[in-house]
Amino acid sequence: MTSGRLYGLGVGPGDPELVTLKALRLLRTAAVVAYPAPETGDSFARQIVAAWLDRGQREIAIRFPMRPGPVPLAVYQRAASDLARYLDAGDDVAYLCQGDPLFYGSFAGILTGLATRYQVRVVPGVSSLTACAAAAATPLVQRDETLIVVPASLPAAALAARLADIDAAVIIKLGRHFPKLRLVLEQLGLLDGAVYVERASLPGERVAALATIDPASVPYFATALVHRGGRER
Amino acid sequence: MTSGRLYGLGVGPGDPELVTLKALRLLRTAAVVAYPAPETGDSFARQIVAAWLDRGQREIAIRFPMRPGPVPLAVYQRAASDLARYLDAGDDVAYLCQGDPLFYGSFAGILTGLATRYQVRVVPGVSSLTACAAAAATPLVQRDETLIVVPASLPAAALAARLADIDAAVIIKLGRHFPKLRLVLEQLGLLDGAVYVERASLPGERVAALATIDPASVPYFATALVHRGGRER
Repeated sequence: MTSGRLYGLGVGPGDPELVTLKALRLLRTAAVVAYPAPETGDSFARQIVAAWLDRGQREIAIRFPMRPGPVPLAVYQRAASDLARYLDAGDDVAYLCQGDPLFYGSFAGILTGLATRYQVRVVPGVSSLTACAAAAATPLVQRDETLIVVPASLPAAALAARLADIDAAVIIKLGRHFPKLRLVLEQLGLLDGAVYVERASLPGERVAALATIDPASVPYFATALVHRGGRER
Repeated sequence: MTSGRLYGLGVGPGDPELVTLKALRLLRTAAVVAYPAPETGDSFARQIVAAWLDRGQREIAIRFPMRPGPVPLAVYQRAASDLARYLDAGDDVAYLCQGDPLFYGSFAGILTGLATRYQVRVVPGVSSLTACAAAAATPLVQRDETLIVVPASLPAAALAARLADIDAAVIIKLGRHFPKLRLVLEQLGLLDGAVYVERASLPGERVAALATIDPASVPYFATALVHRGGRER
């Protein structure tokens, strides 16, 4: 029997209309739909496309621990063996990924366990990177500029080193790291013009000058857009 | 009379199925569809969505000179005044952007001339960044890694400085800069594992180890994916 195919489907940043035609077609035709989910509660990737999961497909929630730090390898190993069961039976599996499958997120870990044994196709999605720039309606990067994407979890000195010499930067996963980032931006003269974006493309989307943001209000999935020339350029 | 709205619509990297539902809806309902085009010949952004331009909408090709170097300001000024005529008449204008509207490309220049006078909405698209990673089926960036996006047009010393200390890099617009980039990667010990991608998501898509590529065969829109850990990690 021919094995099924594994599809990594980017379903975009949150607005269901930002799903691509291709992801929509493949998620509706796969026999099995899998997605990352917290230990308890709903999967955000699933929520994005919930309106189209109306065909009684088999659904598999891969439960990830929500504590900080690396995901235990055992989680990916168990996920790989869960999905392999269906792939071995000849069923296609669509793994839903918030944003893009290969830009941060859990699909890389899923891929590691399965790519050598099964056919894999990745369908790119709209990433949070461009969704945040669209929410702010401000160019991310132009002409021969360099862009850097940095997680806010880096130590202050490493953040400062990464951001010291850039044209444009996107700092992701702010949460409790916000005060540290704010200080680094201030010291580098990058605070003025830095833009804060939260819930890009979703109800409750928030775009504001980063300097005006209350650190206590910043969730994990918040993003800062920084440009050497400031917002107006 | 109320002015029309300007929409910047990302139409993705080339495969028409990588258009989002939102871009598709808005491009079909706008009275005017505009797009960048070379001095003579077809617009790539228009080609991507050609099958849906069947409603007799007004089409405006904004012609850009194809020589290297910055686009003359006069080109953007003329484009702004061409589009303003329709916006003033109350017509919505959809400006089509290959990939994402705010990730390189011409929309930033269009925006500059019009954002202060008209309502603007940006619809993010699948960028070449994630489309190339999908073509290679290799993670772009994971966990707390840093990603840098660099145009190959930078001088060799600047390229080397940008790439010296990275986790992951995407080098764009290779073309005639390929031999210089290859040498820089070799000197930094990043050539092994570097992946070359051309025409991501399109017929004729090419993915190969960068070290095997004939420099004479490299077009402008080709991309290199580099990771400190190499391709297998």
